Amino acid sequence: MTGQNGFTIALDGSVTTPKGFRAGGVHCGIKKVQRFDLGAIVCDVPADVAAVFTTNVVIAAPLTVTKESIAKEGKLQAMLVNSGNANACTGEQGDKDARDMRATFAEALGVPEHYVGVTSTGVIGVPMPMEKLYRGIPELRTKLSTEGGDDFCQAIMTTDLVQKSICVTLTVDGKQVSVAGAAKGSGMIHPNMATMLGFMTTDAALQPGCLQSLLSHATDVTFNMITVDGDTSTNDMVVAMASGLAGNEPLGPNHPDWESFSAAFRHVAETLAKEIARDGEGATKLIEVNVVGASTDYDARTIAKTIVGSNLVKSAVYGSDANWGRIIAAAGRAGVPMNPNTVDIRLGDIAVLRQSAPVAFDEPAAKAYLDGNEVTIHVDLHGGAGKATAWGCDLTYDYVKINASYRT
Amino acid sequence: MTGQNGFTIALDGSVTTPKGFRAGGVHCGIKKVQRFDLGAIVCDVPADVAAVFTTNVVIAAPLTVTKESIAKEGKLQAMLVNSGNANACTGEQGDKDARDMRATFAEALGVPEHYVGVTSTGVIGVPMPMEKLYRGIPELRTKLSTEGGDDFCQAIMTTDLVQKSICVTLTVDGKQVSVAGAAKGSGMIHPNMATMLGFMTTDAALQPGCLQSLLSHATDVTFNMITVDGDTSTNDMVVAMASGLAGNEPLGPNHPDWESFSAAFRHVAETLAKEIARDGEGATKLIEVNVVGASTDYDARTIAKTIVGSNLVKSAVYGSDANWGRIIAAAGRAGVPMNPNTVDIRLGDIAVLRQSAPVAFDEPAAKAYLDGNEVTIHVDLHGGAGKATAWGCDLTYDYVKINASYRT
Repeated sequence: MTGQNGFTIALDGSVTTPKGFRAGGVHCGIKKVQRFDLGAIVCDVPADVAAVFTTNVVIAAPLTVTKESIAKEGKLQAMLVNSGNANACTGEQGDKDARDMRATFAEALGVPEHYVGVTSTGVIGVPMPMEKLYRGIPELRTKLSTEGGDDFCQAIMTTDLVQKSICVTLTVDGKQVSVAGAAKGSGMIHPNMATMLGFMTTDAALQPGCLQSLLSHATDVTFNMITVDGDTSTNDMVVAMASGLAGNEPLGPNHPDWESFSAAFRHVAETLAKEIARDGEGATKLIEVNVVGASTDYDARTIAKTIVGSNLVKSAVYGSDANWGRIIAAAGRAGVPMNPNTVDIRLGDIAVLRQSAPVAFDEPAAKAYLDGNEVTIHVDLHGGAGKATAWGCDLTYDYVKINASYRT
Repeated sequence: MTGQNGFTIALDGSVTTPKGFRAGGVHCGIKKVQRFDLGAIVCDVPADVAAVFTTNVVIAAPLTVTKESIAKEGKLQAMLVNSGNANACTGEQGDKDARDMRATFAEALGVPEHYVGVTSTGVIGVPMPMEKLYRGIPELRTKLSTEGGDDFCQAIMTTDLVQKSICVTLTVDGKQVSVAGAAKGSGMIHPNMATMLGFMTTDAALQPGCLQSLLSHATDVTFNMITVDGDTSTNDMVVAMASGLAGNEPLGPNHPDWESFSAAFRHVAETLAKEIARDGEGATKLIEVNVVGASTDYDARTIAKTIVGSNLVKSAVYGSDANWGRIIAAAGRAGVPMNPNTVDIRLGDIAVLRQSAPVAFDEPAAKAYLDGNEVTIHVDLHGGAGKATAWGCDLTYDYVKINASYRT
């Protein structure tokens, strides 16, 4: 498939498509059900690494350990992930368990501990069943392959309904470069919170610091612009690994292919982010909110996230109710300056508010549009050049059902 | 009934119990159903007035008009309220309509326009049906009486399930003083958002500025500490009127009875606020969150409101799930500093987390407690003297049902 911005979407690609990467998944028994619950991405060489972590002040043990690994050399050769237990709020034992996970996998791979990162997702406040991991890690070691991308996606899922993976390819210095990603989203019945995990791989070579700046910027406008229920997990993390095996000249802002590589990298992040929102707990629709005309991009982001996070807006979209009053009210309470008298709102192509005055619109047409599985809300504040896009999902009976159900 | 802090709860009292106040309600046809939709509280004399308004940048026309009335002399003799139409996002016509409502009621009462305040709650973006108001206002005028407190409560309700009213009495300078209040909360099927309206009356005399400082302080710890769905209405308002007819020496911080009057005033505000939370859309339980040990009261308030506003916490309470992980996670994302390693959490008297470590607790006992219609969550951060209490309600299927339903 020919893509935009000079990159191509590799429909059969995965996190193992970039040169040097292998992956896999196994069932070691953390999940009661017979589904993969332990997975890893490994690289043949120490890969440049960039990462972003949850802003929650309550941080799960594996994140702390992974931060330490990355801090040492800025390189990782393996990311170990388990689902079914978040190893969060588990005290000193949790910290020790996260370190033992790292040490055990490092030994199995024959690499230094600080080349290994670990992350967990699942129920919090429950000690990690280490004996299961000690059994599972050697088995996982034997399953790692360039065919293991799907198994890895399975291993990081909790109650996600669909796998989330994407791979794009582009040409840099005449060499083929791949950028791929896998993610898990918010759909957990048993655990105590939704967790967003993202893993990106590329075989591109990058100049020092460029991978982190690229990931940080991409995260601001993709992963950080989605909300399912406004609750920030203790375990959220996105990690990007670059093997540098594509043979290109190291990429940086001064490289002629930087723009197209940046676009490809961002496309991977945005695709994963939207997939997470679309597959939010109980969701039936993906909601995209585009805000333009704000004083600054920051203000636009704040307003877009407030709108897409509003229970009233989310409920209205679920009910296919062209309820623009909730949209302007959410914008008004976002806490950033805006002129309440110059607001335009469109639902898809249907104008419902112009200069803050109601516009007579075709209700059946609006309902038909809102009945679709992708709803885009356009808001123009006519107050500046600031713009942003946020993604979320509708609020449904199933969201309540999922989250009201008992842990046991 | 003997009350706390030297005041007594007058079980048969209402907003008309304080000397000088009359009230009433009529059906003028704004609501399709045969229920009161127009009401007023009037005072025999120009009453000292204090008011707090929504922080939403999008402000409904009647609030602007009421602000102007109060700004002129700081006195009001009447508050006119309609339900069924919020007169919000109605442009210049809405502003004109709000002024016409004020002028028409002022003429009917024979008082200056700036002694009249108006407020509206209901659907937004729809022009006010003024002809119905022109018919209803003269009728309402004839219905005002000292027996009209209940009718007023009916007139301000939308889909509130219960009336919200309270009256307390105390002795000041040997004189009986009454403080009363009525409120409507968030339970609207047809309108586009929930609106909180509060009305307080007292016959106490107060020193200049004391009523506003009392109301502002009380609002910070009562009305501003409740959340149903985190959406701030364009129409929220609380108004307090003091007739000064009790015959007491004007109350102020230097008055010997100031503390007991403040306590009575705050009790009225807190009772109304809790009733609003308890009667939130679709709610089956009142949730109270007590946070202590924060660095400051401000931090404690932020954390308490974040916890009580968390969809995951609200859903867990609905499901009677002792899901403390969601509570500490919500605290952690509140955006204020806290030590994640020293957190205690109790559900009622049941300790579930101590120093951020899980405590083995009796699950059936916890479920039995959470099955009650009032759930109190205690959080001790062990980080300072800051404390706060917030109130909210559980997130239920009915919340989604109510808010997903069509406007028409």
